[in-house]
Amino acid sequence: MYFRCGLTLLYKSLYTPIGRTPQPIWGSLSRSLVLSPQRRIPEEFNSFVARTNTCGELRSSHLGQEVTLCGWIQYRRQNMFLVLRDFHGLVQVIIPQEESAASVKKILCEAPVESVVQVSGTVISRPPGQENPKMPTGEIEIEVKAAELLNSCKKLPFEIKDFVKKTEALRLRYRYLDLRSSQMQYNLRLRSQMVMKMREYLCNLHGFVDIETPTLFKKTPGGAKEFVVPSREPGKFYSLPQSPQQFKQLLMVGGLDRYFQVARCYRDEGSRPDRQPEFTQIDIEMSFVDQTGIQSLIEGLLQYSWPKDKDPVVVPFPSMTFAEALSTYGTDKPDTRFGMKIVDISDVFRNTKIGFLQDVLNKPQGTIKAICIPEGAKYLQRKDIETIRKFATEQFNQEVLPVFLKANRNWNSPVAKSIMEEQRLGLIRLLEIQEEDVVLLTAGEHKETCSLLGKLRLECADLLEARGVVLRDPALFSFLWVVDFPLFLPKEENPGELESAHHPFTAPHPSDIHLLYTEPEKVRSQHYDLVLNGSEIGGGSIRIHNAELQHYVLATLLKEDVKLLSHLLQALDYGAPPHGGIALGLDRLICLITGAASIRDVIAFPKSFQGHDLMSNVPDYIPPEELKPYHIQVSRPADSEAEKSLLNHPPHPET
Amino acid sequence: MYFRCGLTLLYKSLYTPIGRTPQPIWGSLSRSLVLSPQRRIPEEFNSFVARTNTCGELRSSHLGQEVTLCGWIQYRRQNMFLVLRDFHGLVQVIIPQEESAASVKKILCEAPVESVVQVSGTVISRPPGQENPKMPTGEIEIEVKAAELLNSCKKLPFEIKDFVKKTEALRLRYRYLDLRSSQMQYNLRLRSQMVMKMREYLCNLHGFVDIETPTLFKKTPGGAKEFVVPSREPGKFYSLPQSPQQFKQLLMVGGLDRYFQVARCYRDEGSRPDRQPEFTQIDIEMSFVDQTGIQSLIEGLLQYSWPKDKDPVVVPFPSMTFAEALSTYGTDKPDTRFGMKIVDISDVFRNTKIGFLQDVLNKPQGTIKAICIPEGAKYLQRKDIETIRKFATEQFNQEVLPVFLKANRNWNSPVAKSIMEEQRLGLIRLLEIQEEDVVLLTAGEHKETCSLLGKLRLECADLLEARGVVLRDPALFSFLWVVDFPLFLPKEENPGELESAHHPFTAPHPSDIHLLYTEPEKVRSQHYDLVLNGSEIGGGSIRIHNAELQHYVLATLLKEDVKLLSHLLQALDYGAPPHGGIALGLDRLICLITGAASIRDVIAFPKSFQGHDLMSNVPDYIPPEELKPYHIQVSRPADSEAEKSLLNHPPHPET
Repeated sequence: MYFRCGLTLLYKSLYTPIGRTPQPIWGSLSRSLVLSPQRRIPEEFNSFVARTNTCGELRSSHLGQEVTLCGWIQYRRQNMFLVLRDFHGLVQVIIPQEESAASVKKILCEAPVESVVQVSGTVISRPPGQENPKMPTGEIEIEVKAAELLNSCKKLPFEIKDFVKKTEALRLRYRYLDLRSSQMQYNLRLRSQMVMKMREYLCNLHGFVDIETPTLFKKTPGGAKEFVVPSREPGKFYSLPQSPQQFKQLLMVGGLDRYFQVARCYRDEGSRPDRQPEFTQIDIEMSFVDQTGIQSLIEGLLQYSWPKDKDPVVVPFPSMTFAEALSTYGTDKPDTRFGMKIVDISDVFRNTKIGFLQDVLNKPQGTIKAICIPEGAKYLQRKDIETIRKFATEQFNQEVLPVFLKANRNWNSPVAKSIMEEQRLGLIRLLEIQEEDVVLLTAGEHKETCSLLGKLRLECADLLEARGVVLRDPALFSFLWVVDFPLFLPKEENPGELESAHHPFTAPHPSDIHLLYTEPEKVRSQHYDLVLNGSEIGGGSIRIHNAELQHYVLATLLKEDVKLLSHLLQALDYGAPPHGGIALGLDRLICLITGAASIRDVIAFPKSFQGHDLMSNVPDYIPPEELKPYHIQVSRPADSEAEKSLLNHPPHPET
Repeated sequence: MYFRCGLTLLYKSLYTPIGRTPQPIWGSLSRSLVLSPQRRIPEEFNSFVARTNTCGELRSSHLGQEVTLCGWIQYRRQNMFLVLRDFHGLVQVIIPQEESAASVKKILCEAPVESVVQVSGTVISRPPGQENPKMPTGEIEIEVKAAELLNSCKKLPFEIKDFVKKTEALRLRYRYLDLRSSQMQYNLRLRSQMVMKMREYLCNLHGFVDIETPTLFKKTPGGAKEFVVPSREPGKFYSLPQSPQQFKQLLMVGGLDRYFQVARCYRDEGSRPDRQPEFTQIDIEMSFVDQTGIQSLIEGLLQYSWPKDKDPVVVPFPSMTFAEALSTYGTDKPDTRFGMKIVDISDVFRNTKIGFLQDVLNKPQGTIKAICIPEGAKYLQRKDIETIRKFATEQFNQEVLPVFLKANRNWNSPVAKSIMEEQRLGLIRLLEIQEEDVVLLTAGEHKETCSLLGKLRLECADLLEARGVVLRDPALFSFLWVVDFPLFLPKEENPGELESAHHPFTAPHPSDIHLLYTEPEKVRSQHYDLVLNGSEIGGGSIRIHNAELQHYVLATLLKEDVKLLSHLLQALDYGAPPHGGIALGLDRLICLITGAASIRDVIAFPKSFQGHDLMSNVPDYIPPEELKPYHIQVSRPADSEAEKSLLNHPPHPET
C-alpha cells in the first residue's frame, strides 16, 4: 500500500513534467526536492567537502569537467561499469581497463556493493545509443582517473534497493540502512524543507518568536499518559508534557505576542499502532486574536509551505460545525474527498409498516438514516454486506438493512416488499439513488446511527477502492475546519459529571457563555479542528483569559484540583491578554503529504508500536545502583507470576 | 552586573546610530531587532489580529491615521495621559476629558496599571515642545475615541519596569511577568532571530537536512548524568540523552550527508550554578568532511547569523593547539581578549640562588613560570596579593611569589634581593615588564603551574576591572579554535587506565594513529573546541568511521562494554562514510552575545540552580498509584534519618 501509493505520487511529480514513463530509478527521487526551481538561492551541497559535485547533479552541461565524487557503490556490471550513489542520485562510472590504472581498477572491482568510495575523473558523453533517458544523469558517465576506498561494506542483511521485500521490523532494526532508501530520503528531506518554509512564514513574514519551552515539567491535572522522570529529591518527579499548552499561554501573559515552536511532545499510551511515545507538533499561540485570525494564519502557513511538487493548496478551507460533521459524516473528522453522506430519512418512513422502524420512530430520539453507495450493487459482494451487518451488530449493537438496486430497478432487500412506492420515491429523491447503487439503512438514536454510518461509509469506500473504483484521488488534499464543538462532555465512567471535550483552558462560544451557569453541557466551545482527508491534523482554541471564569470551569464544573494550576490562574489575574492558538501534528501531516503508510515512515528513528527502538534495544534494563540517586526501585510484586515469567523470559523482539 | 552590562550593550546598539544620550526607555529595546533594516521582507506584526499597528511603530509618518492598538497600561499621569505598551514599544495616549467620552475616560482612568486595553483613535502630533526625543514614538500621541478593557490586572508582586530591585527567585516565580521586561523580550527575540538565520544558512544555503532524533533512548556506556524514564515494562527504562551523538552518526551511515538539529539535550548534574537539566545545542554532522571543513562551516554560520547590532564577526577564527593554550593561558578555553600570557622563565633562573626555585629546576619536569599584570602595582592592593597567594596554596598547593615594580624601578618582593641583575633583565625581556607592573611567579610541574597561573590571570583581570581598568572591551567577541587535544586522559580514580578526553567516537589525529597501539596516551585527537571570550561555546570532532578501529578503542583501550554499542559498531561495518561534526551550546552563545549574567536570562522558563521550576513547583510529589504502571516505587531507606527529616520538612523554596 505504502510503496504503491508513495511511489505513484513521487513518480507523478518527478516524471510527469518531462513526459517520461514512470519507472523507479534510485536516487532520482530526492532530486525534485533538492533542486526545486523555486529556491531563491541555490543550495550548495559541495561546500566544505572534498567532492566537487554530487553524483545526481551531473548533466551534459558538465561535459569535460574534472570532478571528484564521493558515494556508495550501487552496483557493478562485468567489472566495466559501476553505478555510484549519493543522496542526490546515481551516476555511471567507467572502470579503467588499461594496465597503468590497475590499482584504480582493483579498488573499484573488489570493493563490495555499498562500500564508500571517492573517485576523480572527467565527465564524458555516453556513446551514441547508450544514453539512459530514465536516469537524470543518463547522458553522461565518468572516466575515472583516481579512486580511493573510504570504507568497505560487509554483507548486508538486505539489499538497499530491494525495498519491497523487507519487513518493517527488519527496516527498523537496520534503520541506518533503511534511511538510504529513496522513500526515507524523500520523506525526511520533504519534512525538513516544509518545516523550514513554515518557519520562514511564521518568523520572517509574521513576526512570530520561536521559543523553546521545558519538557521537564509538572503533571497536568487529570492528564494521564504522561511519562514521569524521577529527580534526585526523594519522591519528587518531573513529567514529560503532552504539549506546551501552559507555557504557550504563559508566554502570552508575558507579552511575547506571537509564539511558535516545533515542539517535542510526549504521550505514554502503551502499545498503540501508529502512535509514537514522542511526537512533534507545530505549536502556535497569538495574543489579541480570534478564531478567524488563527484559521487564516494556518491557511496561509500551509499554502506557503506546501511542497511545490503537489497541487497548490486552495484557501480558505471550508468549515463545518461539529453538529453538521456528525450528522453528515458520522465523525468529527470527515473525509470530504467523496460523498456517500449520511441522510436522515425518518420522514420517509413516518407511516411505515416495518415493525422495527416503527418502534424506533416512536421513541423521542428515534431516527432512520442511510447512506447510498454508488455502484455498490456492482462492486459489493454478499459477503461484504454480511461483514458490514456483523460489524454493526457487534460494535454498535445496531441492525443495518441493505437495499440493492439492480439494473432492472427491482429492489433487493429483506424489507423491499414492505417499502411502499411513495417511500421508494422519497428515498430516491433524498439519497439521489441511481441504478446499481446500494443503500445501507439503520435506525436508532441520532448519535449512534450517525457514528455507525460514518464508519460504514469509510469501510465501503475502502471496499470499493479495493475493487478498483477510484473514489479518492490520491493527488487531492481536502482540508476542512470543524468548529463549534461542545465545551464539555459527560464523563464516560460517570455521565453525571462533566469533562472537557478538549482541555480546560478552551474558551466558551461567546453566544453560549450564559449557559455555563445553567446548562453547561449545552455550551459550545471556541475550539477548532483542522481535518485533512479524514485525519485530524491540528486543533486549537481561543483560550479563557479571565481568571475568575477559568477558576469556575476548573473548580466548579470540572472538579479539578486547582492547586496544580495555581500559577496559571494567578497569571491570568496579572493582565493576561485575550489569546488563542493551535497545534498541528507534524508527523501525521507529513505522513499524509508523502502518502506514507505510517508516521514511522516520516520519522528518522521511530519506536515500534510497542514503544521499542528495535535498532538499539530500547527501553532496557538499568542496574539498581543507577536508580539509587533517584530514590526509586523496581517493584516486582511476588504474587504476579505472569509478570515474573515475563521478566525471566522477555518477549521476542517484534517481527 | 547583568543589567549594567546588558543595558550598556543594548543602548550602544540602539542609541549610538542616532546620536542620542543613552537612557532606559521601556520597550524601545526590542525595536532594533524587530525592525532591523536587513530583513528582506518586512515582518507583518498586525496580520490576523484586531490592531492596526503596534504601539512601538508609530511615527510622524502615521499622522492623521486612524489606528487600533492593543497593549498594557505602563503608567498614567494625572488622568490625562496614559502610556500603552506592547512588545514593540511605548506610545502615549491622551485620555479624553469631554463629557461625551465619559465611558472611555472611565475605562482608561480606572484600569489598574498592567491591565490590558484596546484603544482606537487618531495619530496626532505632540504639541510643540512636548516631543520626547528619547522615545521612538516621542513625536506623536494618540487621540482616543474608543477604549475597551480586555483584562484587568491585580496588584503586582513587583513593578514590571522596576527590574533592578527584584531578586532572581522572585523573577523566576513570576516568570510570566518577568518576560514582559525589556531584557527578556530582547534576549528571547534575539535568540529566535539568530537561530532562524542559522537555519537559513544551513538549510537554504548549504543543503543541510533538519532531522529530529529521539530523546527517549538508551543509556550511553560510561555516561552518568542521564535522567531515566521508566517504561511500562518492569525494570526497563529509557534514558534522556546528553546529545544526539549516536543518532547523528547513524544518519551519516544512512546517507543523509548533512544533518542539523536544534536539539534538546538533558544532563542531570544535580545542583550546579549556570547549568540547566535541559539545554539546547545546534547539532551538526557532515559526511566526507575534514576538520577544516567543519571549521569553515561554523565560521560562516556565525558570520551569517550574527546580530546586525553587533560588530561583524571576522573570519577565519584564530586557532591554537591544546598544548599552546595550556602553556600560554593555563586553560583549554583561553580568553584572548587580553594579554597577561603565561611565560616560561625557567632559563632565567638556571643559576639562581633562591632555594625553592633551585629545587624545582633540579626535578625532571620542573619549570618556573610567570604572568605580568600591567599596572598591577597601581591597582592591586596588598590584600589582593595575599588572597591570590592563599588561593594558590589552598587550591593548588603552590607558592606564588609577587614581584612589584614600583615607579622608582625598585623591585619589591620577598625574593627581590636574590634576583641578580642579569636575571632581572631576562625577566624584563621575556615578560615585557613595564613600570608599575606586578609579576606573579610560581614554580613546579608544567601542567600545575600553567593551570594555577591561568586561574590567577582571570582572577587579576576581574580585580583590575573592578578597579576601573578596561581590560576586556564589552563589544569585542574573540573567537578561538582550540585543536589537537589528547585523545585519552588517565582516569582520575585510576591513572593506570585511560578514558576518552571527549567521547569514544573521536577519531585520532592522522599523524598519531600508529601510537594507538604502542603509546595511546600520546595520541592527539581530531577534536576541536570553539571558544568565545574564554567560554567554550562548541566542540566537535572527526569521528571514527572504521568499525575495527572503533572496536579497538572501545574494548581494548577504554574497556567499555561494547554490547551497549553493538548497533553503532555494526553500522560502521555497513559502508559508513567518513564524517565529522560539531555542537554549539546555544544557551551559552546567546548569553555571551546578549551580555546576560546567566543562561537563565536567555531561556524562557529556566530551572533554578537546584533544578526547580519556581513558578509551578517542579519537580513535585506523585501519588504512588500513578507510579504503578511503571513498576517503580519510591525507596526511602529507614536508616537514613537525614533523608526522612528532609521528607517531613521539605527545604524552603530557593530565595
